[in-house]
Amino acid sequence: MPNVEVCLSPELIHLFDLKGKIVVVTDILRATSCMTTGIASGVAHIKPVATLQECEALKQEGYFTAAERNGAKVNGFDIGNSPFSYMEDRFKGKKIATTTTNGTVAITKSTEADEVVIGAFLNLSTIANYLIEEGKDAIIHCAGWKGNYSLEDTLFAGALIEKIQLRFELGDDASASALTNYQAVKNNLLGTILSSSHAKRLEKYIRKDIELCATLDKYDVIPILKEGILVKK
Amino acid sequence: MPNVEVCLSPELIHLFDLKGKIVVVTDILRATSCMTTGIASGVAHIKPVATLQECEALKQEGYFTAAERNGAKVNGFDIGNSPFSYMEDRFKGKKIATTTTNGTVAITKSTEADEVVIGAFLNLSTIANYLIEEGKDAIIHCAGWKGNYSLEDTLFAGALIEKIQLRFELGDDASASALTNYQAVKNNLLGTILSSSHAKRLEKYIRKDIELCATLDKYDVIPILKEGILVKK
Repeated sequence: MPNVEVCLSPELIHLFDLKGKIVVVTDILRATSCMTTGIASGVAHIKPVATLQECEALKQEGYFTAAERNGAKVNGFDIGNSPFSYMEDRFKGKKIATTTTNGTVAITKSTEADEVVIGAFLNLSTIANYLIEEGKDAIIHCAGWKGNYSLEDTLFAGALIEKIQLRFELGDDASASALTNYQAVKNNLLGTILSSSHAKRLEKYIRKDIELCATLDKYDVIPILKEGILVKK
Repeated sequence: MPNVEVCLSPELIHLFDLKGKIVVVTDILRATSCMTTGIASGVAHIKPVATLQECEALKQEGYFTAAERNGAKVNGFDIGNSPFSYMEDRFKGKKIATTTTNGTVAITKSTEADEVVIGAFLNLSTIANYLIEEGKDAIIHCAGWKGNYSLEDTLFAGALIEKIQLRFELGDDASASALTNYQAVKNNLLGTILSSSHAKRLEKYIRKDIELCATLDKYDVIPILKEGILVKK
C-alpha cells in the first residue's frame, strides 16, 4: 500500500524525501483556493513566483499579476489573493503570475517531487480520487503561516486523508493527528476555520473568501505544476 | 490573560519569541519522562548535553552518564534513556549527565526563555498548577523526532492546555489543535501513544517504559533549568 505523510510547514519539508512522490501543496487561506478557482474558471495557466519583483517583471510577458503580503493586496498589481478575483471573465484564457506570503514558498520547496499538485477544500474529492488512482506515495505539504503551523491547512490534510485512508498507510504521526483533528471538527468546518489565527487576521476584510475556501468540492480540476507553471491536469 | 503557544518541533522554535516566557520542554518518549523520574527519585541534578563527547567528558567531574541515540543505549555509558534506570538507588544524591536524540536539543534551543521547565505526563498537574500560579506567557516546546512532529509530545501539550485553558489564552493554531487532538483520544491515551511512530520504533524493547511515560501525575516535582543543569524547583 502506498504511504501518505503530512508536512506541517515548509520549514520542515527538508526532513522529507520527495523523490518519486506526489506532493499535494495546500494553502487554504487562500493561495491554493485561488489557484484551484482560477484553473477551474478558465485561466490558461498560473505561474507562482517567490518575489514581488519577479511577479512584476512578468507583466512584460503578457501576464496579469496577483500579489499578496500579510493578507493584503499589494499596490500596483492587478489583483490580490481573493479567489473571487480569479473568477473574473477578463482572465479567461489568460495567464496570471502570483506571489503570496506562504503558498508560493511551499510550491517552490516541493519541486523535487515527481509531481506537484494543488489541493484545496474546493477540489478535495478530485485530488483524493487522483491519489487513489495513481497509487504513489504522497506528501501533503501544508503552507502554514510564515513558517509555522496553521490549522486550516492541517484540516485539509485530515480531510484528504479521511478520503484515502483505506488505500494508503498513514506514514507518520502528523497524518494521524491531521485525521483526528479533522474528524473532531468536521461538523463545524467553517466555524473552526473562522477560529484559526489566519482567519482572525483576515476576517474583517474577507469573510466571504473564507466561506468560499471552506466549501467542499465546488470544482473538479487538478492544477498541476509543469515546468514552473500551474496548468489544468 | 497570559498566552500559551505550542511549538511542534525544535526546527520551528526560531519562529517564537521566548523572552520573558516560561518554556515547558517535553519529550514524552522518553527524555523528559526520565528527567522528571530522576529528579523525583532523588537524583541531585541532571545535566543535559548535546553530544556524546560532552557527556563522556563529564565522567571526570563525577557524573554518571546516560546516553541514547535512535532509541538505544549507547555503549560505554552507565544507562540509556529508560525512566526505570533513573529510579535506581545508586543515583540518589548523585548527578547524571545525559544526551538524547531529541530532548536535549529542545532544551538547548529554549534557553532564551525566562525559565525552562521539564514537562511529562508524569508531572502534568504539577506543571499545570505552576503555570497557573506564575501567570506568565508560556510556550510548550515539543521535542519531536529528529526535527519532525511527534504525536505523543503534542498530546502532552494538549493535556497541559486542557488543564490551564480557563486561565490562558490559546495563542496559536498549534495550541488549539493539540487540545482538540488530546481531547479526541484521551480515553485511550496509552493506546494512542502506542500507535505513534516513535512507540512503534521502541515498542519491542520497552513496552513497560511507554506505559510508565503515559502515566498521569505519578510525581509532583518540577525539574527546572538553572545554569545548564536541571534541579528540583
